[in-house]
Amino acid sequence: MAVGSLTRKHPARLAKRSSPRGCDLPQIAVVGLGYWGPNLVRNFHAQPGCRLKTCCDVDARRLDAVHADYPAIGLCADAGEILADPQITAVVIATPVATHFPLAKAALLAGKSVLIEKPLTANVAQAEELVALADERGLTLMVDHTFIYSPAVARIKQLVDSGELGELLFIDSVRINLGLIQPDVNVVWDLAPHDLSIVDHLLGRLPRSVSAFGAAHAGRGQEDVAYLNLDFGDGLIANFHVNWLSPVKLRYTRLGGSRKSVVYNDLETAEKIKVYDSGVDVRGDDPDSRRQRLVDYRTGDVWSPHLSREEPLARVAEQFIECLTRGVRPPSDGQAGLRIVRVLDAAQRSLRARGARVEL
Amino acid sequence: MAVGSLTRKHPARLAKRSSPRGCDLPQIAVVGLGYWGPNLVRNFHAQPGCRLKTCCDVDARRLDAVHADYPAIGLCADAGEILADPQITAVVIATPVATHFPLAKAALLAGKSVLIEKPLTANVAQAEELVALADERGLTLMVDHTFIYSPAVARIKQLVDSGELGELLFIDSVRINLGLIQPDVNVVWDLAPHDLSIVDHLLGRLPRSVSAFGAAHAGRGQEDVAYLNLDFGDGLIANFHVNWLSPVKLRYTRLGGSRKSVVYNDLETAEKIKVYDSGVDVRGDDPDSRRQRLVDYRTGDVWSPHLSREEPLARVAEQFIECLTRGVRPPSDGQAGLRIVRVLDAAQRSLRARGARVEL
Amino acid sequence: MAVGSLTRKHPARLAKRSSPRGCDLPQIAVVGLGYWGPNLVRNFHAQPGCRLKTCCDVDARRLDAVHADYPAIGLCADAGEILADPQITAVVIATPVATHFPLAKAALLAGKSVLIEKPLTANVAQAEELVALADERGLTLMVDHTFIYSPAVARIKQLVDSGELGELLFIDSVRINLGLIQPDVNVVWDLAPHDLSIVDHLLGRLPRSVSAFGAAHAGRGQEDVAYLNLDFGDGLIANFHVNWLSPVKLRYTRLGGSRKSVVYNDLETAEKIKVYDSGVDVRGDDPDSRRQRLVDYRTGDVWSPHLSREEPLARVAEQFIECLTRGVRPPSDGQAGLRIVRVLDAAQRSLRARGARVEL
Amino acid sequence: MAVGSLTRKHPARLAKRSSPRGCDLPQIAVVGLGYWGPNLVRNFHAQPGCRLKTCCDVDARRLDAVHADYPAIGLCADAGEILADPQITAVVIATPVATHFPLAKAALLAGKSVLIEKPLTANVAQAEELVALADERGLTLMVDHTFIYSPAVARIKQLVDSGELGELLFIDSVRINLGLIQPDVNVVWDLAPHDLSIVDHLLGRLPRSVSAFGAAHAGRGQEDVAYLNLDFGDGLIANFHVNWLSPVKLRYTRLGGSRKSVVYNDLETAEKIKVYDSGVDVRGDDPDSRRQRLVDYRTGDVWSPHLSREEPLARVAEQFIECLTRGVRPPSDGQAGLRIVRVLDAAQRSLRARGARVEL
Repeated sequence: MAVGSLTRKHPARLAKRSSPRGCDLPQIAVVGLGYWGPNLVRNFHAQPGCRLKTCCDVDARRLDAVHADYPAIGLCADAGEILADPQITAVVIATPVATHFPLAKAALLAGKSVLIEKPLTANVAQAEELVALADERGLTLMVDHTFIYSPAVARIKQLVDSGELGELLFIDSVRINLGLIQPDVNVVWDLAPHDLSIVDHLLGRLPRSVSAFGAAHAGRGQEDVAYLNLDFGDGLIANFHVNWLSPVKLRYTRLGGSRKSVVYNDLETAEKIKVYDSGVDVRGDDPDSRRQRLVDYRTGDVWSPHLSREEPLARVAEQFIECLTRGVRPPSDGQAGLRIVRVLDAAQRSLRARGARVEL
Repeated sequence: MAVGSLTRKHPARLAKRSSPRGCDLPQIAVVGLGYWGPNLVRNFHAQPGCRLKTCCDVDARRLDAVHADYPAIGLCADAGEILADPQITAVVIATPVATHFPLAKAALLAGKSVLIEKPLTANVAQAEELVALADERGLTLMVDHTFIYSPAVARIKQLVDSGELGELLFIDSVRINLGLIQPDVNVVWDLAPHDLSIVDHLLGRLPRSVSAFGAAHAGRGQEDVAYLNLDFGDGLIANFHVNWLSPVKLRYTRLGGSRKSVVYNDLETAEKIKVYDSGVDVRGDDPDSRRQRLVDYRTGDVWSPHLSREEPLARVAEQFIECLTRGVRPPSDGQAGLRIVRVLDAAQRSLRARGARVEL
Repeated sequence: MAVGSLTRKHPARLAKRSSPRGCDLPQIAVVGLGYWGPNLVRNFHAQPGCRLKTCCDVDARRLDAVHADYPAIGLCADAGEILADPQITAVVIATPVATHFPLAKAALLAGKSVLIEKPLTANVAQAEELVALADERGLTLMVDHTFIYSPAVARIKQLVDSGELGELLFIDSVRINLGLIQPDVNVVWDLAPHDLSIVDHLLGRLPRSVSAFGAAHAGRGQEDVAYLNLDFGDGLIANFHVNWLSPVKLRYTRLGGSRKSVVYNDLETAEKIKVYDSGVDVRGDDPDSRRQRLVDYRTGDVWSPHLSREEPLARVAEQFIECLTRGVRPPSDGQAGLRIVRVLDAAQRSLRARGARVEL
Repeated sequence: MAVGSLTRKHPARLAKRSSPRGCDLPQIAVVGLGYWGPNLVRNFHAQPGCRLKTCCDVDARRLDAVHADYPAIGLCADAGEILADPQITAVVIATPVATHFPLAKAALLAGKSVLIEKPLTANVAQAEELVALADERGLTLMVDHTFIYSPAVARIKQLVDSGELGELLFIDSVRINLGLIQPDVNVVWDLAPHDLSIVDHLLGRLPRSVSAFGAAHAGRGQEDVAYLNLDFGDGLIANFHVNWLSPVKLRYTRLGGSRKSVVYNDLETAEKIKVYDSGVDVRGDDPDSRRQRLVDYRTGDVWSPHLSREEPLARVAEQFIECLTRGVRPPSDGQAGLRIVRVLDAAQRSLRARGARVEL
């Protein structure tokens, strides 16, 4: 076998290697290596535009697992070490929700930008405080609303913005799975942020009111099945079904428009998005047309646009780095995180009030 | 080709032919030949145990269509002729909802038993009056809750009654389609009776309270998209999504149990029912078990019991004839129809109150 | 309820009724009321352009069943009565394959046009004789290649003819089911005519050679599982899988083109046809591009054109009537039937020769 | 956040760490880092029972990519360095097929055991020589027939061996994809080894004869679409469809048995295996039973056994290490690899002879 030169490198890695200590690259730390953390570590480690310097977790086995895969990354069990490290300019927080606020606040006060897992915080006041703090200090506060960085949601946004769907009539989302029952939050705070951030990104506005209905089994007082009803006014309603107890895993978002409709099946590999060129033609009750309308209930073509295979979390990492280096504001900034928390908080109050509608 | 005898008949037809005028068989009339009526005509015509004597509709084209297929069936445009016919002992009513009550009342007063399309009536008072009237007169009042006569729902009821599912935790139903927008009722009154009658049949009890949330497009003031939330107490909740505007046709009922779960996909030909032998094991938050629980979210086998291909409406017809001839009481009697109307009425009030919970 | 006039009729029925004895309409007979016959009876009875005068079968129960649904249709157990009836100008033959030839020949000799079930005959010589006979007598000889009259195949033919698919590279068909094991033919003669007639219709030419491979279980010496390999030259090959023993029912036809590909799933109600705008770009073996090509194996949009719900067999009936009344030649004429039989005969010889290739 | 001890380790890693140079663990090298190589690197690196010492490839970028993820692994561009390294006792070969033989032979001659990508070699003579050489030297020669180490195939083997399927009647496999067109082999040599190794593992015997039919597009003279017909005698036949040009990715294996049938859909995450409790009951041609058999074509339950999520390649690595440390013989030993190459060679000859049957 011919000997190939080992000196050739592709630009990306070249850039990285050219600064062995990465002094000219933002240095980042990841706090929290539970379920999602390792994905953040993998993606930030793969980003040429930054250096992942340190990982932190109280569980030694998790640190050990990171070390086995990435020996060059520093480890610590105390987030204080990260906050005290002047080289680290940004912290990625993937800890339990209850700890988001204290950690993020400490990081911002230490002059570090923050990327934080959804939901931004456990309540509205905390979110408002973080947003204000980041603005004061001129630091980036970004929330990891992963889905809005997916090629699928980006494509749907194009369809919505272009008016191709016509007037939006309803949004129906199903996010159910035999999933991880979180110790500290209910299924609404765990799963609904995905749907809320997608809809917030597509519509760019909050619902006027929300009601929520659910049930808590497994005797923890935390809902593991819930339904959210959102009213956006102008006849647009949304319903989200979030469920930790379903043996079948489903991730659907359906947008019904006056001209076309979209079904987004996130579990589909080949045809994640389908656009239905069909609608309801409200004719009189001529019996024949009525019968025909029922039988021929699909009046148009179906089209599934090609999507890139890009990993959304890679885009999140790129976006965060771009915020750090160019000072741009991300689509999922603190304000977006705050909007989501406001709706979650309203939904929580509705749950407690047995589904009473809560205005926003 | 050999000549085969034309005299041999199978028993069923034999019985029928032996009484050319069918004097000894209950004689039946069908009123209303719109979308569903022709299916009733086809099924009652095929029943050896009765004679379908007359069909009635105001639309001559519909009568003409019946005549083309069944020349032996009498036709009329005025239901009064049927009520005046002493030979006709039972009337099948498949007219618009608003006409159910006057027609059914007149039929009962004329001493005729009644099979009526769902929903039984347009309000509770009407339903109560019909139930009382039928009981007084000792006549059969049956509602065509077709689905409860399907092999699929019968099989699910066995699973529920046997305790194989454990404790029921949630019921989630989706019944959406680019469907016929009814002129006189909204999507709740049109589609939810299917889901309500299925759940009523499976549980044998009313929900404690209901809330409903929907939107009316096409400027008719009638909801064409709606969600019902039902609270059955003991942690059991149900949610129904009914929708006339979906380009995709879906008919799902999911029952989540503490031991097993069932998914009933009515549009599936081969595997309408799937039983999932899986559940949630609420372990501590040991990080590894947590990760594993997420990854291995399906912990048991899936089993799809074989179902007969019997047409549910044929069973409805058989059941009604059995009521007429043997005086048995059908599972979907007037009381069942009344229970469904009570929930529909409560849902209607909740819709008007923007989703406020209504106790039953 | 208002009285509606019974005099109004739609044009179609008007035409029919205006000639109570239908003297001016071609009078037709159906011979053979087994599995497919009743579908032919239903469709020809529904056609305004003809009168279905007589049905024939040796099995009295089948005649009885037709009588119950269509009392106006005459019945007989001896096809001779039909051939002797001067009013009947066309015969529809749906009997076992072995009887196609004698019945069709007798009908043509009696001066009657013929629509015959696929396959046209049990061997090539018989098919050639029928084709010649029909031409001599100037009678219509049409084969019921139902699928080529379906909206799906019509749409695919447009795609092929328009060149939108580019050069055809392969055709792959799967037609498997836990199906009726025919008493007198093997699975190739029973199911492959569907695929052969579809491909013959799309390409308009015979394959150059065919090989067939199968197995006979249930000790009848008749193959119940078989594979046909067709070589059309110019790099176009086709493979058909026909199977009576599959617990899963599948009806797929896949056409791979140099520009686009089509998948036709006949069991799909909503999206029978999918057009894939993707192809293989044969780049060098640059490792990165190779990896990317594997990962991103779907490079284009998917499009599912809307299709009408028309029943193919209704189109077959219309087409046959048009042949009778206007003397047009149908796409599935005797010549098409003969082409299919030639391939079936070659496949049969290949089966006997353990898959040896047979030139056509 | 509390400080956690960094000294605790789980046993696996402990074992590994306790021998920093891993002297007591077999030391392994991976040659070839193209498409599959990196998966082998990941899995062997994760195995506690061995030490992945060196990776080799002529492409510096691939070495660089491995270095970025696993800095501790040695790199080289010349396989000779590995063969000369006395610490390395086993070589994993994932290079193009043409190089399998020279590399594996050199490794065996150097006294190193070998795990080699499928297919074992490019022809029968080479495979026979490697098998003989490994036996002489008492070294392990294992082929990476990944699928036979999957939970799905293991479960199917249980079903076959237990006799639950009854007598096997047919095996039908579809492995199609818009896939990587290999530079040096055709689609048969690239994809069919998967199906052949699965069937060889399930049946434990070679087919008696094989015929193959395909077409080469993209003007390379290498088939990119092909069909293999295998005859196992006793009425058991198998057909494999392998295709690089399909826009739809499919990976099906269907086993039809006299009692039950299995469908294995490798792309399905939740229900990879379905067992159909149905079969064909060859009754006489009583018309009614015939009609019923057609309509009710599914006569039994469907059952999908739960499968573990274990990665098959991890099992391959474990198995290879077990061979190295305990001297066991793997299911996919050189003999198995040789059997597969024999069938591939026969298929190749059949392709050249336009599908002529080749005895084995």
